[in-house]
Amino acid sequence: MRSPACLAAALLLLALRLPAPAVAGRPLVARDRKPAPSEAAATARWLAAQNTWGVLSTISSDLSGAPFGNVVSYSDGVPGESHGIPYFYLTTLDPTARDALEDERTSFTLSEFPLGTCGKVDPENPTCAKLTLTGKLKVVDHKSPEAALAKAALFSKHPEMEGWPKNHHFEIFKLEIENIFLIDWFGGPKPISPSQYLDYGRDQGSVMFL
Amino acid sequence: MRSPACLAAALLLLALRLPAPAVAGRPLVARDRKPAPSEAAATARWLAAQNTWGVLSTISSDLSGAPFGNVVSYSDGVPGESHGIPYFYLTTLDPTARDALEDERTSFTLSEFPLGTCGKVDPENPTCAKLTLTGKLKVVDHKSPEAALAKAALFSKHPEMEGWPKNHHFEIFKLEIENIFLIDWFGGPKPISPSQYLDYGRDQGSVMFL
Repeated sequence: MRSPACLAAALLLLALRLPAPAVAGRPLVARDRKPAPSEAAATARWLAAQNTWGVLSTISSDLSGAPFGNVVSYSDGVPGESHGIPYFYLTTLDPTARDALEDERTSFTLSEFPLGTCGKVDPENPTCAKLTLTGKLKVVDHKSPEAALAKAALFSKHPEMEGWPKNHHFEIFKLEIENIFLIDWFGGPKPISPSQYLDYGRDQGSVMFL
Repeated sequence: MRSPACLAAALLLLALRLPAPAVAGRPLVARDRKPAPSEAAATARWLAAQNTWGVLSTISSDLSGAPFGNVVSYSDGVPGESHGIPYFYLTTLDPTARDALEDERTSFTLSEFPLGTCGKVDPENPTCAKLTLTGKLKVVDHKSPEAALAKAALFSKHPEMEGWPKNHHFEIFKLEIENIFLIDWFGGPKPISPSQYLDYGRDQGSVMFL
């Protein structure tokens, strides 16, 4: 019989719509290279799983509502287990977190170029993939079970974060995705809904991008 | 005696406040590594000279005014001659150019991380430099002498651009810089004015980041 703690964890995963951790014998979507251009949701998830940093754009309160892009680290899961939701570790000493607390509208932008898989193709060439996730940047309650999962995701990919100054009051933020813009081939952006993106691989357990 | 064409070019450079191309015997600021954290304007110019792509953030007309970051290539001069003004080659088939034509407010964000000079330091660590230039994104008249200089800057660093489809109607855009946000060390953003940034190295001819 399962313990109450295990049941609680299972209910939490269900509530958060996160896939369960991979277990022995459970099917796993294992991808060892960039998905084909025809696989839009897979490509978007691959970009989110492979990168470790991107640009968060907010509506700047310091600059009278101008858009303001800032370089940030993120994680969408512990290595090998990607969930697609980007988590961030931000302090209000930085304008991005302050902006988001005033106006949640945010986009998060990733490029394939720094992964080294675009070869000699120009970073702006449509075959060198680009992903922009737009939505609302929200603080994750630091006492919540989701915060524990997000911390594991962040600290496993960014070990130095755990030692960042306590008096800077870093908080975990997440992007609640409302719109997805993916260019991974000629012919314009690929239509992907947030649920197509988040559900990718869910029916097969977890997604492991190698 | 100098030819009228040469005189016209000199007057143009003066009008655009661009440094003259380096000539034999003229002093040149040659930097072969990342400037020290105390040299804020030099660090910002080094980041702009060394990178070839970044994220342009606009106010999205498709997404009801949300900020929208997009991966783009750029150039601030032919290799070895950096002027600090980022030029872009954009088409209105892409939302970024359409957004800028409706609302010029834009920011352009660069990271040191993809240059490989941050070592094992996290991309969000303040010692791994980050630069955000905020201002107005403007079309450069394609018949103007500035467009010729911008094309030389862009096509020398992004050779494939010259062959991009004519029927996509690419235009040259420039960022008119109004605000500079640079993090290159602990202690918060460095105050740099647009003129401090643009004038860096001007009194010594040209800036060559090797």
